[in-house]
Amino acid sequence: SLPLTLFGGMNVLESREMALEVAEAYVEVTGRLGMPYVFKSSFDKANRSSIHSYRGPGLEKGLEWLAEIKSRFGVPVITDVHEPWQAKPVAEVADVIQLPAFLARQTDLVVAMAETGAAINIKKPQFIAPHEMRHIIRKCEEAGNSRLILCERGSSFGYNNLVVDMLGFGEMKKTGYPVFFDVTHALQQPGGRADSADGRRAQVAELARAGVAVGLAGLFLEAHPDPDNAKCDGPCALPLNRLEGFLSQLKSIDDMVKGFAPLEID
Amino acid sequence: SLPLTLFGGMNVLESREMALEVAEAYVEVTGRLGMPYVFKSSFDKANRSSIHSYRGPGLEKGLEWLAEIKSRFGVPVITDVHEPWQAKPVAEVADVIQLPAFLARQTDLVVAMAETGAAINIKKPQFIAPHEMRHIIRKCEEAGNSRLILCERGSSFGYNNLVVDMLGFGEMKKTGYPVFFDVTHALQQPGGRADSADGRRAQVAELARAGVAVGLAGLFLEAHPDPDNAKCDGPCALPLNRLEGFLSQLKSIDDMVKGFAPLEID
Amino acid sequence: SLPLTLFGGMNVLESREMALEVAEAYVEVTGRLGMPYVFKSSFDKANRSSIHSYRGPGLEKGLEWLAEIKSRFGVPVITDVHEPWQAKPVAEVADVIQLPAFLARQTDLVVAMAETGAAINIKKPQFIAPHEMRHIIRKCEEAGNSRLILCERGSSFGYNNLVVDMLGFGEMKKTGYPVFFDVTHALQQPGGRADSADGRRAQVAELARAGVAVGLAGLFLEAHPDPDNAKCDGPCALPLNRLEGFLSQLKSIDDMVKGFAPLEID
Amino acid sequence: SLPLTLFGGMNVLESREMALEVAEAYVEVTGRLGMPYVFKSSFDKANRSSIHSYRGPGLEKGLEWLAEIKSRFGVPVITDVHEPWQAKPVAEVADVIQLPAFLARQTDLVVAMAETGAAINIKKPQFIAPHEMRHIIRKCEEAGNSRLILCERGSSFGYNNLVVDMLGFGEMKKTGYPVFFDVTHALQQPGGRADSADGRRAQVAELARAGVAVGLAGLFLEAHPDPDNAKCDGPCALPLNRLEGFLSQLKSIDDMVKGFAPLEID
Repeated sequence: SLPLTLFGGMNVLESREMALEVAEAYVEVTGRLGMPYVFKSSFDKANRSSIHSYRGPGLEKGLEWLAEIKSRFGVPVITDVHEPWQAKPVAEVADVIQLPAFLARQTDLVVAMAETGAAINIKKPQFIAPHEMRHIIRKCEEAGNSRLILCERGSSFGYNNLVVDMLGFGEMKKTGYPVFFDVTHALQQPGGRADSADGRRAQVAELARAGVAVGLAGLFLEAHPDPDNAKCDGPCALPLNRLEGFLSQLKSIDDMVKGFAPLEID
Repeated sequence: SLPLTLFGGMNVLESREMALEVAEAYVEVTGRLGMPYVFKSSFDKANRSSIHSYRGPGLEKGLEWLAEIKSRFGVPVITDVHEPWQAKPVAEVADVIQLPAFLARQTDLVVAMAETGAAINIKKPQFIAPHEMRHIIRKCEEAGNSRLILCERGSSFGYNNLVVDMLGFGEMKKTGYPVFFDVTHALQQPGGRADSADGRRAQVAELARAGVAVGLAGLFLEAHPDPDNAKCDGPCALPLNRLEGFLSQLKSIDDMVKGFAPLEID
Repeated sequence: SLPLTLFGGMNVLESREMALEVAEAYVEVTGRLGMPYVFKSSFDKANRSSIHSYRGPGLEKGLEWLAEIKSRFGVPVITDVHEPWQAKPVAEVADVIQLPAFLARQTDLVVAMAETGAAINIKKPQFIAPHEMRHIIRKCEEAGNSRLILCERGSSFGYNNLVVDMLGFGEMKKTGYPVFFDVTHALQQPGGRADSADGRRAQVAELARAGVAVGLAGLFLEAHPDPDNAKCDGPCALPLNRLEGFLSQLKSIDDMVKGFAPLEID
Repeated sequence: SLPLTLFGGMNVLESREMALEVAEAYVEVTGRLGMPYVFKSSFDKANRSSIHSYRGPGLEKGLEWLAEIKSRFGVPVITDVHEPWQAKPVAEVADVIQLPAFLARQTDLVVAMAETGAAINIKKPQFIAPHEMRHIIRKCEEAGNSRLILCERGSSFGYNNLVVDMLGFGEMKKTGYPVFFDVTHALQQPGGRADSADGRRAQVAELARAGVAVGLAGLFLEAHPDPDNAKCDGPCALPLNRLEGFLSQLKSIDDMVKGFAPLEID
């Protein structure tokens, strides 16, 4: 029943300047709202649909930019890891390291990340049930790390579609770990465009409100100053100038549902 | 942006006394909450898993009980229709007549119901997409009736499971018709018990909150004084003594989200 | 391990002449192939997407045409029933009466059909699991009829798509009842066209071969002299002039797999 | 229309002796049947459900054993690659290198594998549509490799279940690349056991026959001398002593369907 935490930022680090601009907007808005905040962005998009798609600045430059954001704004940062050797250097900068959904069952990666001691944000794969998250949790725990976060981002629903099962949050909460909701990626329509995924960003507020009303530890969100020209997942990104309106509504819902008396229905 | 309306009652009319007891509880609670209310119950469960399952008092006695509830409590009533010939007599008592999900594409039934002039609650079949509701809508309109309500109750998700696609509400709202959420039936696990569906009533509050947070015209709910001994769909029913706590939380969320300024995200 | 039986015909009775033409083609082809044959067509399409879609000649004229086909060609006939009162008159003409998928859980219809004593072809609803067919079977048996056939026609797979689970045939065969495969309707793409379902008839041979190779009691097939101008489900219909090539391939596969020694793998 | 090729072997290299025993059985059986054959086994299971599950002998020893099988029996070998650095050493031994389903979108891995010049067996992820395979194909081609094989292994169907869409084979065949069917992994029930996936090996013959009847370039199969005691995926493995019966039936079907005249249905 702590207030909603935000893992918020932009999909991929497009440039140092844009990252600073985006971080500044988040810091200001979450500061005004009193919302705990962690800056998120990726240094590498390792599984784009096309080999020609923009991937990011790479590990070295990416960590440099993340470190700058961290020190300039005094916020923790989260970024994702794709191969075991990356875990250690990334964890030297990032406060939370993220296990990607497609890779969440790769034992070597899980163990390498767990051994850093950093908090780990586990994205729930689109192809596993909420109760199966216990296997990934146990891998982390047995590798000595129980600073874990579980993060829903939609389940495969037929071809080229994802659906968020609102009952899955409760299933995951039973593990005792904090449960987050990546509303941005849950908006994806996989394979929906000629060269990339499509998205449903016009519905971001509806979907986020639904998730937050269930009662969650946190929200994962990607925004962009100009979504139509974003280098990755623009169709899912919130326009940055809508950030405050969007978050303040969610904060209101979160405050309300966390104040509700438990109903005790068995 | 009218306040949330409740179609609330019990699954099947088990007895006149119990129906009166249930209706009274709803009337009192919704009265205190200032929530527009319509009493719901079925006179016949026409598609039980087993031939031995309780079906209800039948049309004649069922309508009698519904009429009594209507006059005694001064509330409108809603009940479901299964065959074309039932539409007319049912509409003489019921203010809203309900088109069952499995039957929602049966043209003769749709037309017979439309011709009564009563408001129609169209349950979305588990096997059609939100945007396909336009076909059923058009059938009603062409039969001269545009007093329509669309009601989500979950989509088939693999075997023996339903999932509620929170993005589907927005899709259905584009039709211009009011959209309701039958949270009770969305909790079903089809084929989950030896002789009937199972359910997840412990999660009714989470799922209802998610739906209401999207912004809906109304909620459809079934409660029971003793869910474990209910004659149908007990595993999905809210215990009647939790009704006020449950509804007051949803009303708070509904009031809040309907007060939000639109975010205009394209 | 009896040879493959064919329930074959056309979707809806478009005219007496066309029905005779289609029946004649089937009778000749199945005669040459030595394939047990039952003529199939519908007198009413009761759940078209649009109220303006062609529904058929109706019960009276439809049964007249079916009776003519039956006597002229000396073949049994199968047709579908939509309301309880239709069961008796239909069973006076039809040798096999068909329970539609959407209606397969309507107790009154099931019982009325069972009480005729006719063989019943139960279409598996798109929204239930293979093992749940036992509920519908039990309803028929308890109403005194165990002349039952189970017929797969695809399961809901996300929105606007059906998938045939080849493992479901084995599940249904465990009931002891003959299992058929409606390859035509399994090709549907529900909601795929502005006013009706779309289909994938170019893949009819691939899908039928897959099903028959599993080892089935029978196949359900719809053909049309001019599929692009068929009044219903043309996108799924086999061109009538491909019938012999299509069926002779399936017969070869069926003969082969039914000659295989059992493998006994537990 | 070449005859069916077999990628056959055992899930993971449990020991040198067992690998030789299994390879010998396959070589003898496929020799008698005149079936082109490639030995398959994994040196590392990189995504087991539990950290305590057996993973294999590792890259070095695994490649040694594969090289021994290759030279002793004169057969090509296939094995899977999990990280980019493994591609080169593996391709020095393996004739076909396999891209795992969960990793099939990891650009660095795809490119590293493509650059070896070896043939690549691309497992279709459970979470993408058949037509989306074109993205992975294009990545390989643009990295200079067009010796590609596409391999179906089931699609996510709700929670804890996979389904094989027989229409997906035709979709993938349109790419012009050979299409294989991994019948073993398609039998998995993900998350079905306390510590691992469950499986449906009793249905392996039914499912394989269905796929082969569609008309495929090849089959992927795992067998084991004692499936109940296999160290990985035993619930899906064919008992090794059923291999000849199983394959001879599939060869008969393959020969038959590849001899069919095309039906030309548009």
